[in-house]
Amino acid sequence: MTEAAMVDRAGRPIRVGLDVGGTKIDAVAVSHDGEILGRLRRPTRWGEDAVVDSTVEAVLALGDEVGFTPDDVASAGVGIPGLVDSATGRVLHAVNLGVESLDLAARAGARLGVPFRVENDVKAAALGAAALRGIDGSMAYLNLGTGVAAGIVVDGRIWRGARGTAGEVGHLSVDPAGRLCGCGQRGCVETFCGGGALAKAWGRPGALPVRDILDAAELGDAQAVLLRDDLFRGAAAAVRVLVLSADVERVIIGGGLTALGDRLEHGIRAALLAGAEASAFMRSLHLDERIELLTAGSPAAAFGAALVGASAPVKEIVAHG
Amino acid sequence: MTEAAMVDRAGRPIRVGLDVGGTKIDAVAVSHDGEILGRLRRPTRWGEDAVVDSTVEAVLALGDEVGFTPDDVASAGVGIPGLVDSATGRVLHAVNLGVESLDLAARAGARLGVPFRVENDVKAAALGAAALRGIDGSMAYLNLGTGVAAGIVVDGRIWRGARGTAGEVGHLSVDPAGRLCGCGQRGCVETFCGGGALAKAWGRPGALPVRDILDAAELGDAQAVLLRDDLFRGAAAAVRVLVLSADVERVIIGGGLTALGDRLEHGIRAALLAGAEASAFMRSLHLDERIELLTAGSPAAAFGAALVGASAPVKEIVAHG
Repeated sequence: MTEAAMVDRAGRPIRVGLDVGGTKIDAVAVSHDGEILGRLRRPTRWGEDAVVDSTVEAVLALGDEVGFTPDDVASAGVGIPGLVDSATGRVLHAVNLGVESLDLAARAGARLGVPFRVENDVKAAALGAAALRGIDGSMAYLNLGTGVAAGIVVDGRIWRGARGTAGEVGHLSVDPAGRLCGCGQRGCVETFCGGGALAKAWGRPGALPVRDILDAAELGDAQAVLLRDDLFRGAAAAVRVLVLSADVERVIIGGGLTALGDRLEHGIRAALLAGAEASAFMRSLHLDERIELLTAGSPAAAFGAALVGASAPVKEIVAHG
Repeated sequence: MTEAAMVDRAGRPIRVGLDVGGTKIDAVAVSHDGEILGRLRRPTRWGEDAVVDSTVEAVLALGDEVGFTPDDVASAGVGIPGLVDSATGRVLHAVNLGVESLDLAARAGARLGVPFRVENDVKAAALGAAALRGIDGSMAYLNLGTGVAAGIVVDGRIWRGARGTAGEVGHLSVDPAGRLCGCGQRGCVETFCGGGALAKAWGRPGALPVRDILDAAELGDAQAVLLRDDLFRGAAAAVRVLVLSADVERVIIGGGLTALGDRLEHGIRAALLAGAEASAFMRSLHLDERIELLTAGSPAAAFGAALVGASAPVKEIVAHG
């Protein structure tokens, strides 16, 4: 869908995409043929009004850097955590941002005179990852960050499912004797490979506890070895769930834990191979060949948000000026 | 798709659907407006030639009963275990039928002068269950039989996935300390709620060991209580996987274990409620309200096969006579 959707309907050359996270906004300006023209990261502020302000300011600051004004912006898309009503652009329960209910698309759109669309951040990132990797068929984007969730894209479109929980593999239990999850269940995928759960289980201070865990595991720390194994096994379990339920062709792994780079990719691949060792059926799926890792700092989430914005029906584009 | 697909393209009034299982063939004759006109069950025989013979004979016997000849049959569809290439109608690795590689659609079609289509039995049953229950959106059909697998139907079409493994939730491990599965892994969903795995763990003779397990559990047999809990928890885990990955609106439960009737349905529902007790997120999904059980002996699988047959593109319909 990328090319068709990126056609500039209003003669304005710029599509803006914003990934609004708990700590920072990642913003990209995209040309009508899908090229990323510029990128900017800014801190997010807490609370509903502040999220609107940060969003608006990020667009303006990106314009200053790239050289455009809101008049040049054909559309803007926002990926944001929480429950998102993509039809209305309302965000619910984005607890890390202090948002209970925010009419983000309408408020940011009115401030800038630009049509906004809003989408759940993982779903938007899935769309971006599929486009950046040129995947036409089916794929899942598995986000390994503080929490764990996936977005599924089929034929260039976000797979929403019946009630918006498609890809919520982080809260499937894969071990009844596992650690207690924040969601109340035991042994959820997220307790194994979520950055937050691993940091809590590790219990030692550090800027990126999961990196400390891998470093300590390499030095033979017994607790770290167990947690490292959990990380890889949990991510492998998530991959298996995505392939054995929705049967996506590829699983692209993104999120903050991609800062671990090759160590993460090799570890997950090894866990998938180990899981397949005893099972001809699992071997036949070639799961280890079907995963890939985004580069740390990939603009997939913001780029996906730009695609979400560009997918606005023509009738939703408001007149400006 | 039901109505459109059931339109009789060739002026022939009958659509035949056959569910070819390890022990019996269930055959239905369906009118062009989707009404089941007659039904017949016959034993299956073992081996490739015998499967073709049994299929052909089932169509003829059904015709004798309902009152039609192959000349009246617009299309036939077959649901059969194993790997099916639905484009060519070839069946691979249907081990319970002694089939290694069988060109079933071509061979049965040539014998009867009727266009045949072949589909994996669980996928065909999913299509039939969705149609019989009037589900327009998304649903999964969870087959609890000797083994466990699901088929997913979205907007009246079988969701195939990238490589045909969509819905293969039976071989997802949900307990690393669980029983060894026939597939080589430990703690697969199928080890919890597959009739074969439960019978093996039970280890006592009987026509329907899972019924014996429920009966003995009600009398307080400790081993039976454990296995009964496994059954309900395993089926609940399968439901969770289907909703939290593909996010189907409903899960229809079918297969041989539906002979357990209300005891099965209540047990799975109770397990879903128990699983949701600790988790607000799980409670918000209302999984207990999203399952339903097919009646034991439901014609869903054969009816779905008739729908598969009726979906043949016009160009594939061969001239007869």
